Amino acid sequence: MTPPGLMLTPTVRLRRTPMWAAVERAGVRAATVYNHMLLPTVFVSPDLDYRHLKSAVQLWDVSCQRQIELRGRDATRLLAMMTPRDIRKMRVGQCLYAPIVDAAGGMLNDPVILKLADERYWLSISDSDLLMWALGLATGLGLAVTIGEADVSPLAIQGPRAESMAARAFGDRIRDLGFFEFVHVELHGEPVVVARSGFSGQDGFEIYVEDTPRVPVIWEALMDAGRDDDVRVGCPNAAERIEAGLLSYGSDMTRAHNPFECGLERYCRPHEAPDCIGHGALARIEQDGVRRRIWQIEIAGPPVSPCDRPWPVFGEDRLVGQITSAAWSPDLRKTVALGMIDRAFWHDDASLR
Amino acid sequence: MTPPGLMLTPTVRLRRTPMWAAVERAGVRAATVYNHMLLPTVFVSPDLDYRHLKSAVQLWDVSCQRQIELRGRDATRLLAMMTPRDIRKMRVGQCLYAPIVDAAGGMLNDPVILKLADERYWLSISDSDLLMWALGLATGLGLAVTIGEADVSPLAIQGPRAESMAARAFGDRIRDLGFFEFVHVELHGEPVVVARSGFSGQDGFEIYVEDTPRVPVIWEALMDAGRDDDVRVGCPNAAERIEAGLLSYGSDMTRAHNPFECGLERYCRPHEAPDCIGHGALARIEQDGVRRRIWQIEIAGPPVSPCDRPWPVFGEDRLVGQITSAAWSPDLRKTVALGMIDRAFWHDDASLR
Repeated sequence: MTPPGLMLTPTVRLRRTPMWAAVERAGVRAATVYNHMLLPTVFVSPDLDYRHLKSAVQLWDVSCQRQIELRGRDATRLLAMMTPRDIRKMRVGQCLYAPIVDAAGGMLNDPVILKLADERYWLSISDSDLLMWALGLATGLGLAVTIGEADVSPLAIQGPRAESMAARAFGDRIRDLGFFEFVHVELHGEPVVVARSGFSGQDGFEIYVEDTPRVPVIWEALMDAGRDDDVRVGCPNAAERIEAGLLSYGSDMTRAHNPFECGLERYCRPHEAPDCIGHGALARIEQDGVRRRIWQIEIAGPPVSPCDRPWPVFGEDRLVGQITSAAWSPDLRKTVALGMIDRAFWHDDASLR
Repeated sequence: MTPPGLMLTPTVRLRRTPMWAAVERAGVRAATVYNHMLLPTVFVSPDLDYRHLKSAVQLWDVSCQRQIELRGRDATRLLAMMTPRDIRKMRVGQCLYAPIVDAAGGMLNDPVILKLADERYWLSISDSDLLMWALGLATGLGLAVTIGEADVSPLAIQGPRAESMAARAFGDRIRDLGFFEFVHVELHGEPVVVARSGFSGQDGFEIYVEDTPRVPVIWEALMDAGRDDDVRVGCPNAAERIEAGLLSYGSDMTRAHNPFECGLERYCRPHEAPDCIGHGALARIEQDGVRRRIWQIEIAGPPVSPCDRPWPVFGEDRLVGQITSAAWSPDLRKTVALGMIDRAFWHDDASLR
C-alpha cells in the first residue's frame, strides 16, 4: 500500500491551476495529477467532504478538465471519425458525453463534447493526451482543422443546492438550463460558458472560463453567490462518484477496453456513426456481445485500504475480474467499487449489483 | 508555493511500478507522476541523494519510461515521419535521442529510440502520450504498423561506479558497450536489454526488463551486484540533471517550442529527414534562426523555493524569458536552472552560461 506519507514533488510539468493559491488557502490536504495538472482530492476528510457535497454545494477547481479545441472546415468530419456516437445532429449549445476509440474500438478517452459553433468544438477530456490522437489523425488525413489546448479553466458547482447558488450567480433563468445544455452568460461583466453537467451524481453546473487571468474574478463571484447555500471549496469525491457510476479513464477503462465492456452502450451506436474509425470493430462487438463488463460492486465489512492497484476478483476459486476503483461510502456503510467482471459471473447477486 | 504537506492520493490511474514495494522499503519520501505512473523523487534528501549519485552508484526504478513499440512493415516509414533526425541509417542495437514534432515543428516528446530489428522499435518516452500521435498518424495514413505500450519496465544504474557494478552483474564485456548502444544479455538466466544511457550526467546503464513478473529477480540481482560499490536505491535528481543540461518535457519544453529553441540542433536535421512531417516548418526555422532558446542559468544566493510554476526572467526592466526547472546544487553552492531566454539577452553573461 502506498504509505499515507508519500509527498508529491512540485515541478512545472505538474501544472498548477489558476486558482491553486485559493485551493491552498481553502486547506487542500491531498491532490492527484490529471492531464499533467493538479487536481485536489481531499479538503477536510474524504467522509466529511462527501457529506457536504451531498447536502449543500461545493465550488470545484477542475481546470485539469482541459479543453481540446477543434476548429475549421473539417472539424465535424474529424470528430465524426473519433467517436461511435452520432454527432452529426448535435446542436450548438449542446454537450454530449462521447467515447473516443481507436480502429479496434479501444477506449482512448471519454470527453464531454461542447459544440460552440458549426465547425468549432471543445472536448473536455479525461486523463489522456487526446490532442495527440486528434492531431495525428488530422495530419495523416490532411484535414483542414486547427487543434489545440484552449486557455480554458473549468470550475464546477456541484451539490443539491447548486441550482440555488447558480441562480444567485447567473439569474433565475439558469434554472431552466437542461441537463447537458450550455449557455453563454456573464458574471460581473465577464463572459463565461455555463453547462449543466459535472463529475458527480448531484445536480450541478460547470463554468468554462476562457483566459487564465479572468479566472479569479469568476471564482470570487461564485464563492460570494454561494454564501447562503453554505458553499465550500471542494473536489470530486471518490465514494460519491463511484455511487453515481461515473467511470475514471485510466483506472476503470483503458485502450484495452471497448465502450460496450465499459457499460457505455447508450453512447456507442456504431450503426449511427458510419464514419467512426472504430465502426467495423464495434459493429462486430455489438453483434457478438462482450465477455466482460464494468459493474458497480459493494464490499461488505470495514473500510479497506486505498485501491492503488487493480484488485483481483475471485469466483468459484478462479479469477473472474478486477476492481479498479473503491471507496468507503459513509451513507451505505460499506465500500463501493467499480470493476470489470467476466460474463459468467454477471448474475452473482451476492457480489454485484 | 505548493506546501510541503501536499499528499498524493493513490489511485489505479496513477500506476504503481512492478518494484514499488521495494521502492517503499528503501524509504521513498516523495514522488511524481510520469506517464500516468509513479516515479520516486527523493529518498534521504535531495542534497544527500545528489552526493551519493555523484560519488557511488544508484539503482533507479524508472518504469515510467514507458516503451511505445512500433512493429510491422511500415514501422520505419512511420518513425521517419515523426522525427527530424535521420533514422534511416540506424543500426539494430543503436539508441538515438530524437525530438518528435508536429507539422509546425512543435515538440511532442523526446524519446530515446531503440532499434530492436529492421521493422521493430521501442520509443522510451518522456511525459506525454506519444502512442496517440503515432496511432493517429498511422491510422490516418493507413500504415501497416502495430503500435502499443510494451510490457517493459526499465531500471537504471547511474553513477561513477556504474561500470564496476554493471561488470559484476553482466560480466566484463559490458565495459566495452559504447554510449547509446544496447545489447541483449542475461542476468541469472533472464534475458534483458542493457543500454549505456540514462537520465543523469554520470556514467550509467539502463536495463529494459520485459514481462512484469520478471522484474523483481533482475532488481535483486542488480542490488546484489552493486553491494561492493555502495549501491543504493535512488532516482533522477533535479539538481544533477539540470547541471547535466538534460531537459524535462512538459517543464522545459512543450508543443509551443521547436527543437532549435530547445537547443536540440544536434538532433534536428530537417535536410537529412525529408519525410518528417515537420520538415518544411523546421527547414524554415533553421534558416531564419530562433528568437528564444533554452539556456543553463545560475542563480546566486541561498536556496530558493521549488520551481512549481514558470518563473519570469527580467532584463532591462522587461520580461525576457522564463525559468522552468531549478534546484539547489550542493557542489556549486548556488541554484542551477534551465530557462527559455529571448535572443537579445543571450550574451548577458551575468545571468546566463
